[in-house]
Amino acid sequence: MVLKQKKEIKKEDSSIVIKKLEDFGTALVKEIQNSQPPTFEIPLRTKSNVFFDEKLNYLVLGDKKEKRTFLSAAQAKKFMQTIAIANKCKKFLKENSHTSIRGLFYQLKFSLGDDLDEELFSEQSESNPLIEDLEVSLNVKREDLNLNTDRKGVVAGNMVLKDTFGGEETIIDCSKQGRSGWMIPSDVDNGMEIVSLEADYVLVVEKDAMWQRLNEDKFWKKENCILITPKGQASRGCRRLIKKLSELNLPVYIFTDCDAWGWYIYWTIKTGSMNLAYIANSIATPQAKFVGVTMRDIKDYDFLKNLTINAKEVDLKRAEEMLSYDWIKRYVQWVEELKIVLKTKKKLEQDALQGPSLSFVGKYLKEKIEQKKFLP
Amino acid sequence: MVLKQKKEIKKEDSSIVIKKLEDFGTALVKEIQNSQPPTFEIPLRTKSNVFFDEKLNYLVLGDKKEKRTFLSAAQAKKFMQTIAIANKCKKFLKENSHTSIRGLFYQLKFSLGDDLDEELFSEQSESNPLIEDLEVSLNVKREDLNLNTDRKGVVAGNMVLKDTFGGEETIIDCSKQGRSGWMIPSDVDNGMEIVSLEADYVLVVEKDAMWQRLNEDKFWKKENCILITPKGQASRGCRRLIKKLSELNLPVYIFTDCDAWGWYIYWTIKTGSMNLAYIANSIATPQAKFVGVTMRDIKDYDFLKNLTINAKEVDLKRAEEMLSYDWIKRYVQWVEELKIVLKTKKKLEQDALQGPSLSFVGKYLKEKIEQKKFLP
Repeated sequence: MVLKQKKEIKKEDSSIVIKKLEDFGTALVKEIQNSQPPTFEIPLRTKSNVFFDEKLNYLVLGDKKEKRTFLSAAQAKKFMQTIAIANKCKKFLKENSHTSIRGLFYQLKFSLGDDLDEELFSEQSESNPLIEDLEVSLNVKREDLNLNTDRKGVVAGNMVLKDTFGGEETIIDCSKQGRSGWMIPSDVDNGMEIVSLEADYVLVVEKDAMWQRLNEDKFWKKENCILITPKGQASRGCRRLIKKLSELNLPVYIFTDCDAWGWYIYWTIKTGSMNLAYIANSIATPQAKFVGVTMRDIKDYDFLKNLTINAKEVDLKRAEEMLSYDWIKRYVQWVEELKIVLKTKKKLEQDALQGPSLSFVGKYLKEKIEQKKFLP
Repeated sequence: MVLKQKKEIKKEDSSIVIKKLEDFGTALVKEIQNSQPPTFEIPLRTKSNVFFDEKLNYLVLGDKKEKRTFLSAAQAKKFMQTIAIANKCKKFLKENSHTSIRGLFYQLKFSLGDDLDEELFSEQSESNPLIEDLEVSLNVKREDLNLNTDRKGVVAGNMVLKDTFGGEETIIDCSKQGRSGWMIPSDVDNGMEIVSLEADYVLVVEKDAMWQRLNEDKFWKKENCILITPKGQASRGCRRLIKKLSELNLPVYIFTDCDAWGWYIYWTIKTGSMNLAYIANSIATPQAKFVGVTMRDIKDYDFLKNLTINAKEVDLKRAEEMLSYDWIKRYVQWVEELKIVLKTKKKLEQDALQGPSLSFVGKYLKEKIEQKKFLP
């Protein structure tokens, strides 16, 4: 399948976002001119306002909103910081330059001095509240504001990309990346175009080591799939790429450990996560299915019963938590699976499939995918 | 410079390592035939046997050795496990297949059952003592035993590689990797050949976000350098690549934060680390120099004085530790630098150089490199 996609042109994309930033500023200026306190309203991002949408099949924000106003002792500083961020992002977009949250912090510190809450811009902090404010109020991703996010994850397969970046065009052929694969960047939308795609499905493999194993065996070539590893929990860019491939009608199969961390990776890709519910429409892939490993695999692959290892407290706790979520417990197969874990107090790692021979894992995946043995 | 390197052929490399493994086994068999307890001797890897070599300028193992013998209640199990590992690695080499430590663990568990110490094969554990035993006793890297290590780090620049992997050859042009760069693999030796290299120096940048910033500005193209980020602490593969480039006579400049973590990254690349002293001759680059950021930069770049942040306890503690190391305190410039940190209790991040403008960091690097303003 050679895709005839609408060509994405960076400049047009930017100008839409710049317009949004300008409208945002103009509205505040108008309020000041009308002697009203400058105020903007944003959807609340607390847990109490995150819901599982039964139609969309992913986590979304509810209707609750909150106001940010300049004329509030508690909010004045943050309000000012948000406006300063909007201003900087507009500058980055106009300059066509990207930076990180930390780079943004120093740009602001350079102009605002110490009147800045450093902790809000910490790389370590899971959320960067001020930037999230801007994302939700403008309905854009921070990647669209030329802010890079942590990149992680690798892809190989019959996919060709055109990367327009730093004023140059580069053709990236994901079938010609040797042992390394192509590293999934922060932003897979702006200036990034899928030129051709020839694959039957997407296989997402939790661990990089397992991805390398399958890549060495040319699994993606033999089985005609796009082989992705998020290298653990998927980055925003990786989730976005999986979503884009799903929107191009490729089925998405997820292959993780049978344990707390593996399940978390699966559900985050499928239904989104609490703290990124506000961009779930860009990064959640509800069509994703779970190919393994499962405790039920032991029935079909007898040797696995000797390769289980003891579940940890965190695995058992997570299994119980999952059984309490409405959107998981409706799936009888998941309930069965989790109950086996709770009963046996055992878990399975995807690496166990290398027990009989290094390349057995490919045979396992081929069989399960052909027989459509998935968990929903 | 187009390199006329001796072509590396995977098959020959493997056969040398296979021979070493066979000799290792044969020697043990001979001992048994001579009614002696099978025993092998390995250099001790404890801190007490790690020294800074004044001639080589990196950390090496001393002369202390220890014996591993089968006829010892304390060692019998580990001895048997080491032999089983050697056997599996020979198999992987003959099959020309790679796996991870975890994959190796399951191969052994499949054949040995529960008679295996799982903790010794934990991905999380910093060292995998049994495999290290094999590395030091055979004088090979685990990568040469077809065991993949964690890969991390990215490179861009005028370098072309030939990657022979999974029975196929791929040409990787590191100047045509767009926004992502080329991901540095676990093994940059076996089946990996530098076909051409056109650069004046190697610049190693601590943070991926900063690497992306410089990559967007085409710093490596304008300044004709190889631009690497280890993405924090450098992986074995990344250190090995830096070493290889240094051996091809490229100067290596390291650019990190001025704090505990940044200094640690620098010294690890330059002098090696305690726990990898046994392969320092493969991965330490004593020629590396520190280009920044430094507290002394504030003299030349006045704006930086407003962009310092508070040093943490760990930074101050590390500065004091470094002042106690013979191989650091002999450098008067480092002593001066660390004393400024201890006196002011401030630190500087490389991101601070984005304060005045996003592309200022390129100007800074160009100036410091041209004027050779390095710390040794």
